[in-house]
Amino acid sequence: MAAPERAARVRVPDRVPSLLTDLYQFTMAYGYWSARRHEEPAAFELFFRSNPFQGGFALFCGLRECTRFLGGFRLSEEEVRYLRSALPPDTHPDFFSYLRRLDCSGVTVRAVPEGSAAFARVPLMEVSGPLAVVQLLESSLLCLVNYASLVCTNAARFRLAAGPKLQLLEMGLRRAQGPDGSLTASLCAYIGGFNLTTNVQAGYLFGIPLAGTIGHSYITSFSSLEEAEPCRLPPAAGPGPPVDLVSLSRASLSRVCHLLAEDRAKVREGELAAFVSYAAAYPSNFLPVIDSYSMASGLLSFCAVALSLCELGYKPRGVRLDSGDLCRQSVEVRRVFRTCAEGFGKPDFLSLSIVGTNNISECNLEELSETIDAVGVGTHLVTCTLQPSLGCVYKLVEVAGRPTMKVTEDPEKSTMPGRKGLYRLLDARGHPALDLLCVRDEPPPREGVELRCHLLGQERNPISVTPAHVVSLWRDVFVQGQPRPSLPTVPGTITTPDSVASAAQL
Amino acid sequence: MAAPERAARVRVPDRVPSLLTDLYQFTMAYGYWSARRHEEPAAFELFFRSNPFQGGFALFCGLRECTRFLGGFRLSEEEVRYLRSALPPDTHPDFFSYLRRLDCSGVTVRAVPEGSAAFARVPLMEVSGPLAVVQLLESSLLCLVNYASLVCTNAARFRLAAGPKLQLLEMGLRRAQGPDGSLTASLCAYIGGFNLTTNVQAGYLFGIPLAGTIGHSYITSFSSLEEAEPCRLPPAAGPGPPVDLVSLSRASLSRVCHLLAEDRAKVREGELAAFVSYAAAYPSNFLPVIDSYSMASGLLSFCAVALSLCELGYKPRGVRLDSGDLCRQSVEVRRVFRTCAEGFGKPDFLSLSIVGTNNISECNLEELSETIDAVGVGTHLVTCTLQPSLGCVYKLVEVAGRPTMKVTEDPEKSTMPGRKGLYRLLDARGHPALDLLCVRDEPPPREGVELRCHLLGQERNPISVTPAHVVSLWRDVFVQGQPRPSLPTVPGTITTPDSVASAAQL
Repeated sequence: MAAPERAARVRVPDRVPSLLTDLYQFTMAYGYWSARRHEEPAAFELFFRSNPFQGGFALFCGLRECTRFLGGFRLSEEEVRYLRSALPPDTHPDFFSYLRRLDCSGVTVRAVPEGSAAFARVPLMEVSGPLAVVQLLESSLLCLVNYASLVCTNAARFRLAAGPKLQLLEMGLRRAQGPDGSLTASLCAYIGGFNLTTNVQAGYLFGIPLAGTIGHSYITSFSSLEEAEPCRLPPAAGPGPPVDLVSLSRASLSRVCHLLAEDRAKVREGELAAFVSYAAAYPSNFLPVIDSYSMASGLLSFCAVALSLCELGYKPRGVRLDSGDLCRQSVEVRRVFRTCAEGFGKPDFLSLSIVGTNNISECNLEELSETIDAVGVGTHLVTCTLQPSLGCVYKLVEVAGRPTMKVTEDPEKSTMPGRKGLYRLLDARGHPALDLLCVRDEPPPREGVELRCHLLGQERNPISVTPAHVVSLWRDVFVQGQPRPSLPTVPGTITTPDSVASAAQL
Repeated sequence: MAAPERAARVRVPDRVPSLLTDLYQFTMAYGYWSARRHEEPAAFELFFRSNPFQGGFALFCGLRECTRFLGGFRLSEEEVRYLRSALPPDTHPDFFSYLRRLDCSGVTVRAVPEGSAAFARVPLMEVSGPLAVVQLLESSLLCLVNYASLVCTNAARFRLAAGPKLQLLEMGLRRAQGPDGSLTASLCAYIGGFNLTTNVQAGYLFGIPLAGTIGHSYITSFSSLEEAEPCRLPPAAGPGPPVDLVSLSRASLSRVCHLLAEDRAKVREGELAAFVSYAAAYPSNFLPVIDSYSMASGLLSFCAVALSLCELGYKPRGVRLDSGDLCRQSVEVRRVFRTCAEGFGKPDFLSLSIVGTNNISECNLEELSETIDAVGVGTHLVTCTLQPSLGCVYKLVEVAGRPTMKVTEDPEKSTMPGRKGLYRLLDARGHPALDLLCVRDEPPPREGVELRCHLLGQERNPISVTPAHVVSLWRDVFVQGQPRPSLPTVPGTITTPDSVASAAQL
């Protein structure tokens, strides 16, 4: 479980309201109550029917929010009064007294650990408790698990496509579904293998490392070098007098244009001024976006200011490319950096970073990892363009000790009855071989002992498997109203970006 | 503006945090501050570059959230302390004192009214104030406008495809990006022309009418008629003794099977029990989902219980179809209802509603409006599958009285410099003809006076237009830190689902 270990400063955000559910849950709860069945013990399973993104796995996320929601589940007097106005007028008044007293003290949840690789039709959670209460929780739990797991899985796929070295920066705030869509995206992308976020609130709440440089508006806010004056910067080391960075950068620009045989007229003076001003503010963190006007202008200005910083003993950090063909441009930028490193005798030009942030998707990521050091991903990550929803469902499997199932004409929509046990079988190298569902009261599979089982969808031909290791996947995460502390990870659980790869080989 | 009039019980939800922004905004603010430019008056425009869904318009939404965010914008001591840890260590300490004092008292926003039809590259909002402050607001405003406008536009497109009569029910809670993604979807879908939501919290917060019946788990929780016993229902009118609804429905089922020449063995007893129990709880709101097992079973059981209710003087409401080919099935269901109406002399069967809720998209909506009375839309509405993000941007157009623009090699990404006036020109019938952008200090267009203007993207060939009416589109919605009360609607603004059609004809 990556999140709890990494997120050192988790604060409790606002409570998820208990009315965040679909009206039909209250209609059903009233039906159970009217039939005096509301206290019958029941169990629901939460699962998805097919792996997202036409892929081989999903990562389970959102569990922490679920247990927090369950812990706080209670309807206030005002909320119940509202429900009285929303339900039909012939609803019996005693039902509202019942709602007013409800909480999750009778509810228990078993779940796979947050961050685990999970597979189609294998339940992520089992929610048990009084029938009417566990019914009411359906929509809220689905809301908290569906998107969290989807975006975490999406992030893991970006990580797989990027390889282990490329730095991945989540920057989807402006494209997400409002404030907590964006915060869920930041957190779950981090769990899924991203390194950084631009979302300051996500850094504040979850302790995710932040990144961010400057945008085009900063560049376009300058029109001439006068606006950057006075702009004096002391040398990085030693007590030397501050140097006028405007004059120094003018001189550096001449040297750069001469070395690269470029025309100084290509340079937009406002852009140069913006770079100078930014470098003066953050001389050790100079990483501007260089394509506000044209690559030619931005690259010359960058090299001039970077050279000035090098002269003063600072180490410029790199450039950001935000438009056009990032792959082609990054090759050109590297070539120019090499020329400058040699021409000026400044090896720091060789270790400059190139960050790309233009419309990056899982599909075009692989080609970038050769020449680019970090990419920022917004839209395609947070809106999950390849599949913008995960279809988790929440199905009743047992009530009053009796297994239940939905048998439909569509076999995909049929459910598996009864409460179960869930085990991950591992081979001798510790790699997951399969996840085994069995009847709850069956003895668990034993290490080194051959067992026969049926692959889902291929029930006619049983297979044999001899697990080297057996891990019980479900943990008690919420027992009779009490959240349990986080539990250690299990093999096959995502702990670092690298391990996503092995999980996905399943 | 549909929202303020309809939403009678708007409560103030949780505050949008002021740190909900991208880190680079603080980096830029520091750059402005270091260059002593942070107080320079500046103006940004917020707009999208192309109409979403390859369509002809968008509806602007999210404005109310924006003004609320601006009104509460302030960084706490703890938030500033966090920023100190997140920004480079050489950031000047006085910058943090400056951040601690920041608010939006110097900020003014002009915007088109919420719910207006809006078009590519025509600014939705102009945000002016001190350069560093209006820069800091960028990401938060984009987050609040982008998804709200996208889902509102999507809802309007569903309404256009559905025609004016079909009831549209938003049910996307479980597929949205968490709690406030779902709440934004409910509110903006309502503004865009939906009639109802299933999201109880959205009803509670915004006063949106709720709908909801029962789900499959209610059906599968019953296995035999004994579970519904005892189940006594008094006649609707008059003081007659309560009737045993189980026995009555058994008898009704025989009559239904006989009339329809169907085999009673097709009926799942648990489903019949669930319907009986639901009907006993809500005899005047009986509208069950009928395809938990098979249409044959569900339809026979429904007719049996509906007939029983009719016998007792109640009016059953209808059925919900949640799988398969909704169009084909609804034709069959209508046929059965007609047969029952005639065969039992119960005309109430003719006015039963059919509600469809299976994977409904804009594309398959039109064919449903013939036989179906209401549809529930989840995934395709709230995730906007056809285009899951709106690409609003926020561009600097003026600083210190000087127009600014971004001129790039990609003409689409170039901006129009300077502060502007924005007018909607209407023809003699009151229909919008075009939206006119002009320089802020130009005299506004006059009614009945011909003017020449350039169509965006076709700058070489000016056109002439003589407006019959002129409406200034931007209203002051936030002036020097103070939100202004809602203003009356303008022509071309969406007020009812019907008027979406005329706006979209533009």
